[in-house]
Amino acid sequence: MIGGKNNKYYSLYERGRKKIDKKLKQSLGNREPISLYEPASYIIEGEGKRIRPLLVLFSVKAVGGNFNQAYNAAVAVELLHNFTLVHDDIMDNADKRRGRPTVHKLYNTNTAILVGDSLLSVAYELLLKDCNGNSKKIFSAFTKGLVEVCEGQSMDKDFETKNDVSINNYITMIRKKTAALSEMCCKVGAYLGNGSEAEIKALANFGRNIGMAFQIHDDLLDVSADETKFGKFVGGDLVEGKKTFLFLSALNKAEGSIKNDLLKVIERRGIKKNQIKKYKNIYIKLGVLKEARLAIKKYSKRAINSLCVLKDKNNRELFIWFANSLIYRNK
Amino acid sequence: MIGGKNNKYYSLYERGRKKIDKKLKQSLGNREPISLYEPASYIIEGEGKRIRPLLVLFSVKAVGGNFNQAYNAAVAVELLHNFTLVHDDIMDNADKRRGRPTVHKLYNTNTAILVGDSLLSVAYELLLKDCNGNSKKIFSAFTKGLVEVCEGQSMDKDFETKNDVSINNYITMIRKKTAALSEMCCKVGAYLGNGSEAEIKALANFGRNIGMAFQIHDDLLDVSADETKFGKFVGGDLVEGKKTFLFLSALNKAEGSIKNDLLKVIERRGIKKNQIKKYKNIYIKLGVLKEARLAIKKYSKRAINSLCVLKDKNNRELFIWFANSLIYRNK
Repeated sequence: MIGGKNNKYYSLYERGRKKIDKKLKQSLGNREPISLYEPASYIIEGEGKRIRPLLVLFSVKAVGGNFNQAYNAAVAVELLHNFTLVHDDIMDNADKRRGRPTVHKLYNTNTAILVGDSLLSVAYELLLKDCNGNSKKIFSAFTKGLVEVCEGQSMDKDFETKNDVSINNYITMIRKKTAALSEMCCKVGAYLGNGSEAEIKALANFGRNIGMAFQIHDDLLDVSADETKFGKFVGGDLVEGKKTFLFLSALNKAEGSIKNDLLKVIERRGIKKNQIKKYKNIYIKLGVLKEARLAIKKYSKRAINSLCVLKDKNNRELFIWFANSLIYRNK
Repeated sequence: MIGGKNNKYYSLYERGRKKIDKKLKQSLGNREPISLYEPASYIIEGEGKRIRPLLVLFSVKAVGGNFNQAYNAAVAVELLHNFTLVHDDIMDNADKRRGRPTVHKLYNTNTAILVGDSLLSVAYELLLKDCNGNSKKIFSAFTKGLVEVCEGQSMDKDFETKNDVSINNYITMIRKKTAALSEMCCKVGAYLGNGSEAEIKALANFGRNIGMAFQIHDDLLDVSADETKFGKFVGGDLVEGKKTFLFLSALNKAEGSIKNDLLKVIERRGIKKNQIKKYKNIYIKLGVLKEARLAIKKYSKRAINSLCVLKDKNNRELFIWFANSLIYRNK
């Protein structure tokens, strides 16, 4: 799932991921009512990259702590992430998630609303288990992430019907919807490991910027991915008329008939599948794929530069490997 | 809204309530995106009794603190309560709340889901503002309340399609859905005011038991209320086929044709409006209104008895007045 299997950090990632999967399962097992926790377990059993909990664990390690201090908190951020997925899937009327039916499709919308709420409640419960000493700061960071994720999702939904979304609006939206969460993960980990102020700031910076890069890469993959590896069809964002980094950049650069073609996407709230190739060519012509790659580079550079505060070379390398795995992933 | 206007504690209640209303409004004002916080403000602008935040404030006072220590926490529990209302209204497909259109009816379901999530996120944010010293305990209590409310709501929804709900199931459900929240309010207040272990336990006990009494009184009001004061039509629970304390008690006691009449309510998932009188008479005949009144008395007695730990007579009286206002209310 994460690239660089031959890298020495991959086994660390895999060890963490497996334990998180186990702990995730335990976190919702043996709870009642079953009508609530069975569908809640269903969503977390879907295969996930577990990027966010790994950011927590790696951050604990980066400031001199170890993974065992933070597994509950790591599971908590994954539950929070899954809470957003379950509710977002209702809002997007999505049929599938990680190749399986979404919670509201397999069960129903009421169950999915409650499952989301419940995942969030258990997330807080678990976070508390790892909180010692500086629990207020950890709770603050976690809650700030939650507040921003809700605001980001609201902006994203607004964009669907707004005709005048700017690149700046988009950047604010993904900072809240995606980057706030990865920033929070690094912060929580750094707090749990009792990092210094400088380390906390540096890791928060890494988290935020790698989140930005991750999201723009996500937009880029939708157009440029190798369909055989991507797991879903290429061009989905275009079909849905989503105002992605690529689309908004294209709109910024286009003139004349090409601009009209792009405005039609907004007007008609998407395109037909057989038009994907045409629009991909527009993107290439306007150089927006290149622009996206530059933006990804910019943010990932910022992320990696902030790591200079970390004393241990291995920790810096671990984060750099993780950052690269995320922004060079093919699905 | 709350009875006993001539009582000396009423002005204390009113002062607290007005300040909570003001702080509630402030808590969501000046936040962006407006598309999220405007509908969030709409729900809290509906007239509410603000029972839960008042429980927080009274509990702070009861252990020797003062209201000003806890307004943020008080607002936090009201936001949490409103989060449950917004999501429950979607699940119940309810048109009205406090005499006004529900959020999902006035806006749409997507907005209402996100508004609920957001109210909860801001609740945690506000709670943090009042947390000092024992923040972990306060967060634990708040989170436990949240977890149980979700579980209680899930049980309540299950009951709609279950044919074999027992009184015990019902008691567990309202303990989670209603009483866990009032228990949490008292606990949070007692912690914020730095109460002793005995005071915290006593107030938690009060909160839980008064919540039980409150909910059974709610069920009773649905059948026995004076419609001119009730604000909604009497018999709504019967029409919806809800498995209330009254209904389950009746089912327990009934035999023969009356039992069959009650089983039909389950089978047909409710009754017609013109059958309300018939079923009310069944309730009276079986003595379940009396039984409900006895249960309310039992729980409110337990609540009031636990107050003996409080040193100050005025504080005990304040809680007794509040308890009585809640269980003798007519709407």
